[in-house]
Amino acid sequence: MSSFTHFNDQGRAKMVDIVDKNETVRIAIAKSSIEVNKAIYDKITNNEIKKGDVLAVAQVAAIMAAKKTADIIPMCHPLALKGVDVSFEWIIKETDEYHLEITTEVKTKGSTGVEMEALTAASVCALTIYDMCKAVDKGMVIGPTYLLEKTGGKNGDFKREINRK
Amino acid sequence: MSSFTHFNDQGRAKMVDIVDKNETVRIAIAKSSIEVNKAIYDKITNNEIKKGDVLAVAQVAAIMAAKKTADIIPMCHPLALKGVDVSFEWIIKETDEYHLEITTEVKTKGSTGVEMEALTAASVCALTIYDMCKAVDKGMVIGPTYLLEKTGGKNGDFKREINRK
Amino acid sequence: MSSFTHFNDQGRAKMVDIVDKNETVRIAIAKSSIEVNKAIYDKITNNEIKKGDVLAVAQVAAIMAAKKTADIIPMCHPLALKGVDVSFEWIIKETDEYHLEITTEVKTKGSTGVEMEALTAASVCALTIYDMCKAVDKGMVIGPTYLLEKTGGKNGDFKREINRK
Amino acid sequence: MSSFTHFNDQGRAKMVDIVDKNETVRIAIAKSSIEVNKAIYDKITNNEIKKGDVLAVAQVAAIMAAKKTADIIPMCHPLALKGVDVSFEWIIKETDEYHLEITTEVKTKGSTGVEMEALTAASVCALTIYDMCKAVDKGMVIGPTYLLEKTGGKNGDFKREINRK
Amino acid sequence: MSSFTHFNDQGRAKMVDIVDKNETVRIAIAKSSIEVNKAIYDKITNNEIKKGDVLAVAQVAAIMAAKKTADIIPMCHPLALKGVDVSFEWIIKETDEYHLEITTEVKTKGSTGVEMEALTAASVCALTIYDMCKAVDKGMVIGPTYLLEKTGGKNGDFKREINRK
Amino acid sequence: MSSFTHFNDQGRAKMVDIVDKNETVRIAIAKSSIEVNKAIYDKITNNEIKKGDVLAVAQVAAIMAAKKTADIIPMCHPLALKGVDVSFEWIIKETDEYHLEITTEVKTKGSTGVEMEALTAASVCALTIYDMCKAVDKGMVIGPTYLLEKTGGKNGDFKREINRK
Repeated sequence: MSSFTHFNDQGRAKMVDIVDKNETVRIAIAKSSIEVNKAIYDKITNNEIKKGDVLAVAQVAAIMAAKKTADIIPMCHPLALKGVDVSFEWIIKETDEYHLEITTEVKTKGSTGVEMEALTAASVCALTIYDMCKAVDKGMVIGPTYLLEKTGGKNGDFKREINRK
Repeated sequence: MSSFTHFNDQGRAKMVDIVDKNETVRIAIAKSSIEVNKAIYDKITNNEIKKGDVLAVAQVAAIMAAKKTADIIPMCHPLALKGVDVSFEWIIKETDEYHLEITTEVKTKGSTGVEMEALTAASVCALTIYDMCKAVDKGMVIGPTYLLEKTGGKNGDFKREINRK
Repeated sequence: MSSFTHFNDQGRAKMVDIVDKNETVRIAIAKSSIEVNKAIYDKITNNEIKKGDVLAVAQVAAIMAAKKTADIIPMCHPLALKGVDVSFEWIIKETDEYHLEITTEVKTKGSTGVEMEALTAASVCALTIYDMCKAVDKGMVIGPTYLLEKTGGKNGDFKREINRK
Repeated sequence: MSSFTHFNDQGRAKMVDIVDKNETVRIAIAKSSIEVNKAIYDKITNNEIKKGDVLAVAQVAAIMAAKKTADIIPMCHPLALKGVDVSFEWIIKETDEYHLEITTEVKTKGSTGVEMEALTAASVCALTIYDMCKAVDKGMVIGPTYLLEKTGGKNGDFKREINRK
Repeated sequence: MSSFTHFNDQGRAKMVDIVDKNETVRIAIAKSSIEVNKAIYDKITNNEIKKGDVLAVAQVAAIMAAKKTADIIPMCHPLALKGVDVSFEWIIKETDEYHLEITTEVKTKGSTGVEMEALTAASVCALTIYDMCKAVDKGMVIGPTYLLEKTGGKNGDFKREINRK
Repeated sequence: MSSFTHFNDQGRAKMVDIVDKNETVRIAIAKSSIEVNKAIYDKITNNEIKKGDVLAVAQVAAIMAAKKTADIIPMCHPLALKGVDVSFEWIIKETDEYHLEITTEVKTKGSTGVEMEALTAASVCALTIYDMCKAVDKGMVIGPTYLLEKTGGKNGDFKREINRK
């Protein structure tokens, strides 16, 4: 007596088959952000956080996380990354809000895109900043985190419309 | 001739010393969110996403990520987690916006808190949902991601004021 | 005075050189099985196991383990997997034995085969089921675990003869 | 409009809460087995396998896998292992079958048992032997893999009845 | 017919049993060093290395490596580290040799020492510096790497005699 | 108000872009060394170390570490290794010094070299030997560790001049 259950036909977990896809250059750019209070802004920019130089550590964490993506995101295909770059920009609003904008850019030559690698790097970058500053204030807020742009692959490029955010 | 450079005195990377802190029960609750379009909302709730049952996979990813936190966040202390729970709630706004609210709760008995574990689990949960649905639409937005509550430890409890968000 | 000891000539640990092998599509299918009692069978199929939806979690674990194979099996070459699929079938014998048959299929385009990835995925799938059900009964038995089929590579295909098992 | 979905109440993935359980000494002993043909038996015992000394490598793999268990099995609690031991015994049947019996023993002092660590170590030990010998024959069969014994913890000890296997 | 082979009695791989050892505070201090040429010394101290701020990245790498020690060194027991600190000192000899001295200090409260964590952190620190500067010159030399001091544990303290090096 | 900070232009952490580099065969050979006392030399060569067969375990550790290099060294590109070999030679000096020379050779077909993989394998090999023998004597010294030779890649080959060491 056999009761067959092929869950994948029912929509369960599967790493989709990309064995026939071509290897092309693929680039993805993601953004995240973390809002901090004035005390944290001052300490980061004056390098007075006890755990260390916050942005330097966060950059390393972001790059290492990009490489760990397939280990963290269950259905992600492993990819040999060819370049990862992380940059920061402070946006200080009149209303005394301090936003650190994070931009990650990931490149590979492979048969699937690197959107998840760029998004994971941006998220881990923000989480690392939270970790290093949380002794000062636990009220920091992370996000929005989103894909800004991707190029390469047969499905065409993606570019986020500016008026959406 | 010696030119001494003890970077830690200059505020560089350091895993802070907690050897004298007591082991107590510590709980942290974090929140994240992902905004999806109607097509994705329909496919998730009808279990029609090609990569699998989205929320089931995201829950597993969140729990495994909580355990990997000290490997992902550079200055985090390793902690033996004693419990991790992840739950979801759909918030559907009149304006046709579909938000999936993610709540993670992490417990340990240790000498430092589990805020980072809860925040990492919530972030990876959202990233996994993005990964599984990105073939439908790459415009999903993750966040805000923040700490809702923490208890345990000598520095007192933290509870996010509701009117802040 | 020098006493040379090149252990590899004596048959010690070595990751064999495959730098001259061609990259071709390679597929491997492996099988494992776990025998459970009626109480566990009922709880799995009714989704009443306290730790969660057993088969959904086991599928995710299997796919993630396939990606970790080169980290787990010492002499395995790292490979960029291109697809992983896991399926289940219940075999219920008249004698009141409940066997959950696990089948894993792994694909890559590379210079060595993916037998170990398929076998590791199948084993971890069974171990995860054990973990999630062990509060009910610790007497579950895993196996036999074996390679069913492999294609690709210069050494020819392998297909298990049915009368052997 | 809110449609609440707390999957855990529906039986989905959760790392169960053990924060109130006592730390006690816990020991688990697991068994696995791999059946090989005469050619492989001869090569292993004469140390003629090209990839290295098979049993020495398999022992290291088993011990390292025991430490990775919480990273491999999704709902497993991380545990600080206090000892891991692996041993082998050849069972050669008259019918020309060569079985290598694997026994793993794992110890910890913690708030949950080490059954999964012992079972994972035994499984990875067998998989490593498969990997190192598969160039000779791919027809090897792994298993049965099962828990032989566990002690420690409030739920009482477990000892496998001999007549079951 | 059975031919018993308990390799551990023959001196093979085993994670030694420490289940009965007391948990005490343990500290280890290790040293490593990397010799670089003038061009690299100038670029590091002027922060002109293309891959980034060399010492900041190396510090992060060292701290993360300390946490990975039990995953890298096969027979090492996993330990919950309570503090890791890394510092640098340039020793410039008259003979135009530029040595960067690396000191790592690791603390835990556990049933075995943290010598391997301190040594692994120091080694990875030096390797990271090599990686970041190797585009300038591949002739850098790492070492000597050694344990300077350890305290805690029933076997007594260790302090390296100065005249030995 | 925006205060832009692109740290990479200031020399901070970045994984350099190799997306346009050709895939060629690349080989790197590294050396390390560990100096032990007579008691340890005797125990290793007589296989009397309690933790196991020292050189067999160290070889496995070295090969596994080569595969982990991109996870350990922050700015390293992930590479699919095609072969790793580790060998040992005892150099016993008249002055009663026992040096175990370690040589690692790593091969890949990729767009960047494997110097870091060979150096990491050699370092971890030495660290593993230290770990397995430290119960006998903690005064062992590791190093010098250096690159002996590399071939492949557009920047030309590297061969260490003998009179330098």
